[in-house]
Formats: sequence, structure tokens, C-alpha cells
Amino acid sequence: MEKSLEDLKIRLREFAAARDWDQFHSPKNLAMALIVEAAELVEHFQWLKEEESAALPADKLEEVEQELADIQIYLIRLADKLDIDLLSAVNSKIKLNEKKYPADRVQGSSKKYTEYIT
Amino acid sequence: MEKSLEDLKIRLREFAAARDWDQFHSPKNLAMALIVEAAELVEHFQWLKEEESAALPADKLEEVEQELADIQIYLIRLADKLDIDLLSAVNSKIKLNEKKYPADRVQGSSKKYTEYIT
Amino acid sequence: MEKSLEDLKIRLREFAAARDWDQFHSPKNLAMALIVEAAELVEHFQWLKEEESAALPADKLEEVEQELADIQIYLIRLADKLDIDLLSAVNSKIKLNEKKYPADRVQGSSKKYTEYIT
Amino acid sequence: MEKSLEDLKIRLREFAAARDWDQFHSPKNLAMALIVEAAELVEHFQWLKEEESAALPADKLEEVEQELADIQIYLIRLADKLDIDLLSAVNSKIKLNEKKYPADRVQGSSKKYTEYIT
Repeated sequence: MEKSLEDLKIRLREFAAARDWDQFHSPKNLAMALIVEAAELVEHFQWLKEEESAALPADKLEEVEQELADIQIYLIRLADKLDIDLLSAVNSKIKLNEKKYPADRVQGSSKKYTEYIT
Repeated sequence: MEKSLEDLKIRLREFAAARDWDQFHSPKNLAMALIVEAAELVEHFQWLKEEESAALPADKLEEVEQELADIQIYLIRLADKLDIDLLSAVNSKIKLNEKKYPADRVQGSSKKYTEYIT
Repeated sequence: MEKSLEDLKIRLREFAAARDWDQFHSPKNLAMALIVEAAELVEHFQWLKEEESAALPADKLEEVEQELADIQIYLIRLADKLDIDLLSAVNSKIKLNEKKYPADRVQGSSKKYTEYIT
Repeated sequence: MEKSLEDLKIRLREFAAARDWDQFHSPKNLAMALIVEAAELVEHFQWLKEEESAALPADKLEEVEQELADIQIYLIRLADKLDIDLLSAVNSKIKLNEKKYPADRVQGSSKKYTEYIT
């Protein structure tokens, strides 16, 4: 088993190369593939109440797990193609978000939350 | 800087808790937030030719990097809420894909690729 | 004011031609633009409870109205580019759905609904 | 055959009522369903070159037609639930776009286009 995003990047690179699929993996196409997987995830939740979405039966949960994997796979491929380090990108973004949404000011009500978030 | 998906999961958990945002983070809502971020990624590429999407100017690339980070952040949050291990989910999915798309059979043409992939 | 989808198709065709935008309006690109608009719609609802989404304040409702318009615009453009008649496509699809989801069998519970729908 | 968006709105209203599906058709859920259909559309185009997307074989085109129909159906349902008139929303949006993208200024190059559009 690959132990990190970095390991997975290499494995997915080899996976695509072995199939001669790099010709299809432009960032434009990978972004499309990623949103298609994101929609397959959304589809599992579209008619559920919020509380139902937090208590999925085992078979649904396994399907959702595969959708999350697909999204992660395309995210790794796209980052690789653009030479972006996902871990450091996330670290930077969290720092930005800490300034943008100071805990003491956005704390609590949904109203404040949506005002700040959107 | 957090060094792994596991570390980031903990940090994002604390980030949400400090802002009392868990009330909004049902899997249903997080899936919606994730696809919204995926669309912000797609927006960068929608009018570009494939080759342009692979050669972004520095300012665009930085914006795209932030979109990738946002997607990764919601993916980590959602996996956490559903108690899914992203790394092992990806490892399992790659194994499945290796059976589904054997390198010697899907090799090469886009026709074969799209037949197998969709 | 244009009175039908057909009228709007012509008007949007002229709008694009006057700006020399047809070069960007491949079906692939228009599909991307459409899903980006769909996500802007989703964004309005992502942190709302279902009942809140049915009782939007006037300013939010106006923004949502513009998102619906954007989706409709790209849908008309895409159908035009593919020479598809939207009205007759919808009529055909409703007939299919009537066979697929017979009223007496899918009536009622969410369980039945999601089983049939997804 | 229904002849207008208005007729289709009534028919789809009856379709949902006959199946007791209004309970699932909150604007939040309908927006999710709509983006899922938009992604099924995107999926048809994700690995195609732009010029291929404009020259679909007949069987693909029929599938795409059904996706366009699904998007239109959810768009009509959502507009109905929010009491929005789609035709007048589109007319208003086109007027706005005419001011936002004056033909003489955005004419021509993709650079200008993307600067104005995004």
C-alpha cells in the first residue's frame, strides 16, 4: 500500500503511462473528470435529509468511499500535471482561511457563517 | 506545516470546532461545498484550449492551486465525517482500476479509452 | 421580450455572433460553462436547511433567479449547437420517465423513491 | 406534446404530485439533482477534443439529448418551486449581459473574452 500523497502520485503516473493515457490528461480534461466524480458523490446525497447523510448504511458507505477515492485520484493527477504540491497548497490555504475567518468573529450563528463563507 | 492527510484532518477538525461549524458540516452539505469548489476549478479552464490549460500563466496557476486546496480540504472533512480513510480508499480503488482497465487491453486509442472509462 | 425558447435561441445566437464568441462555444466548453453556473446555484443552498432553501429572502431569490437564467442560456446555446430541440427532448424524456417510474409503484416513501431514481 | 415551458411546468408538477415526490423537491435538493445531470452531460465530453464534441455520432447525440432534457426538467421544477418565470429571467439576464459585454469592446480575442467573462 502507498503511504502518502507523494507515493500515490508516482503510482498514478505509472498507471496512466502504462495505458498511454497521458494524451487525455490535460488539466482541462482532468478538471472535467474530477467534477463528474464529485457529482457522483452528490448523487448519493441528493434526496437524503442531512441527518440521513450522516448515517449511511454499509453498502452506500462503501460506494461513497469509492467516489471519494475517485475524486482524490483525479486531484492527485491534476496537481501532478500542474506541478502543484497538494499538501503545501492545503497548508497555505488553511493559513489564509484563518485570517479570513477569525474564530472569534465568525463563531456561532449560521447567518454569520454564510455571510463570511460565500 | 502539517505533513500528511492525517495531520491535516486533525487540523481541519480543530478549525471547524473553533468556529462552531460542525453544525453545517453534514456529509450532504460538504458534498455540495466540494462540487462548488470543483466548479471554480472548471471555470478556470472552460474557455481554454487543452494545451493552454497545461501552460497557465503564474497568476492563474496560483488561483488554480487554491482551488485544488479547497477541494482537498472538503474531501478531507467529508472523509473524516464519514470515518473513511482516504489513503486506503485510494489504494483499494487503484487495485480495482487495475483489474477494470488492464494495461494491455486499454492501451492506446482514445476510442478504447472512452469505451472503457465511461 | 422574447416569448419562447425558439426566440431566445435566435437572440442568443445573434448575441454570440456579434461578439465573435462562436469560436469558444464548442459543446465541450458550453457543457463546462453550464456546470459552472449550476454550481453557482448550488452554492446559494449549500449551508441552508431544506426548509430555508424554500423561503429565500428577496435579495437571495433575485441572485438565484439570475443563476437559473444563466443555466437556461447555456442550455439553449448547447442545444442549438447540437441541433437539438429542447421542447421535444423534454416531452420525450417525460414519456420515458412515466414508464420508468409508474405512479402506482413509486408512490410514497423516500426509500422507494431513491431506489428508483438513482 | 407540451408546447411551451409553461405547459411543461404544469405537466411536471402533476408528474411529481402523482408520485408524492414534492416532499423531496426542496430547492436545495433540486439544485443538487440539476448539477448531477449537468455532470452526466459533462461526462460525455470529458475526454473528447473540442471538435469531436461538435460532431457526435448518432447514439452519443441521443444520450446527450436526454441529458439536456433532464437538466431542463429540473430547471423547470426548481423555477416552479421558487415561483420564478424562466423566460422573463432569461430576457432580463440577456439585457444585463448586453451592458456587461458590449459587442464593440469584447469583440474578438479569447483574451478579452476570458477577462470579461470570468
